[in-house]
Amino acid sequence: MHVREMISTHPHVQGNTADQLIRFIEEAYSCAQTCTSCADACLAEDMVAELRQCIRLNLDCADICAATGAMASRRTGSNVEVLRAAIQACAEACRRCGDECQSHAEKHEHCRICAESCKRCAEVCQAALEEVR
Amino acid sequence: MHVREMISTHPHVQGNTADQLIRFIEEAYSCAQTCTSCADACLAEDMVAELRQCIRLNLDCADICAATGAMASRRTGSNVEVLRAAIQACAEACRRCGDECQSHAEKHEHCRICAESCKRCAEVCQAALEEVR
Amino acid sequence: MHVREMISTHPHVQGNTADQLIRFIEEAYSCAQTCTSCADACLAEDMVAELRQCIRLNLDCADICAATGAMASRRTGSNVEVLRAAIQACAEACRRCGDECQSHAEKHEHCRICAESCKRCAEVCQAALEEVR
Amino acid sequence: MHVREMISTHPHVQGNTADQLIRFIEEAYSCAQTCTSCADACLAEDMVAELRQCIRLNLDCADICAATGAMASRRTGSNVEVLRAAIQACAEACRRCGDECQSHAEKHEHCRICAESCKRCAEVCQAALEEVR
Repeated sequence: MHVREMISTHPHVQGNTADQLIRFIEEAYSCAQTCTSCADACLAEDMVAELRQCIRLNLDCADICAATGAMASRRTGSNVEVLRAAIQACAEACRRCGDECQSHAEKHEHCRICAESCKRCAEVCQAALEEVR
Repeated sequence: MHVREMISTHPHVQGNTADQLIRFIEEAYSCAQTCTSCADACLAEDMVAELRQCIRLNLDCADICAATGAMASRRTGSNVEVLRAAIQACAEACRRCGDECQSHAEKHEHCRICAESCKRCAEVCQAALEEVR
Repeated sequence: MHVREMISTHPHVQGNTADQLIRFIEEAYSCAQTCTSCADACLAEDMVAELRQCIRLNLDCADICAATGAMASRRTGSNVEVLRAAIQACAEACRRCGDECQSHAEKHEHCRICAESCKRCAEVCQAALEEVR
Repeated sequence: MHVREMISTHPHVQGNTADQLIRFIEEAYSCAQTCTSCADACLAEDMVAELRQCIRLNLDCADICAATGAMASRRTGSNVEVLRAAIQACAEACRRCGDECQSHAEKHEHCRICAESCKRCAEVCQAALEEVR
């Protein structure tokens, strides 16, 4: 990912890179991929019937992470309230999905990795919310 | 769109179709397409430099509408808090984008149509939020 | 969906609306929603373990339909070769997913509806490919 | 990104990680972000009117990269022909967008970085196509 390089060359940014938002973008794209992978790995497990809720939360989390990551990548004009609301939804999705994946972490390594990714993304959502006002 | 048919055949739904949520799904997918089109039509206008904020809001609105429409399409398990937060972000995006498009509605027919689409979607977001608890 | 209204007000279109491409956009957004719903309904079925391949094809089909529907919505500048390649991928996804869903159509009404949606979208992909050159 | 970790823990993969496909997933998500950023940075430039084609290609490239990155992340069941067609569309999008961005690289640093990202992704598309059969 080359998020910092891209943001720092935006004509309106001029040094105000918003470092927590940059970290958020990186984690959001990464978490979107991880949750997409985890949903798919859960689907392949013998005990898929017990992983339905996990797959549901993974797919929702992937959707909101991808959308919010793209929104946070934009610096032209301003859309602060919308971006804040999206990051809040993303944080909630990451917390719920992280908790669910954590509960399967001992049985499924993909859930363990995904739980960590979701928790990192939820944390950086909070940091970004303090920065983006 | 065949949203109602699909939702009503989901094994967990059994008559509890959540009609406002179904309307939301239809408007969200439609608004995602309309905002994608409006961003592109604004980009082609001679006065594109004055439509930068409109394009930004259109792209953000398209992203959150598409993500939330997909999330609202899922009925397996439960993810109410996340869905509510996403719909709130979607409502905010539609209000902001609708207001911006409305301000260009007399000059640009695509902005007029898009403003209407955003306002419809914002309204049905509110109705869905009262239903999804 | 207000695809025709939006496309016909684009400053570069001027009557050259490309009717098959408009039909494609409508079917692509609709099929993205239907496949998202079908994946989720399959996940909730008792026999989910036998529907893994169907869920996989549904999710892939939803992704490519959503992306190609957005790409086909753009009329600023030109990107014909890319659009054609994306529509070809979309057609292939719709054919494969439609066939898989058809094989479950007697047991699952959501698969029957989804099979029809995929077949309509695959057909209009072909019609759009003849128009977009 | 934790693509390799996630793919290698998928129950069906068992060592057959498909290394070029893993590289493709990483580059596709990264290129989706870079193209989203480049479209937005171009929109903010004084000479936006001369960057319309670049913005168009950036947005299309972001859409197909994101969709194909998600599709390539799935290993449950099989969908080879669809994945190949999507990677071919992605490669074409990256080549076209990379060439357009390259032509603005001396004037705009974001276009220079984006051109490199697109070229890397186009190359790894070819490598993945030789692996995925």
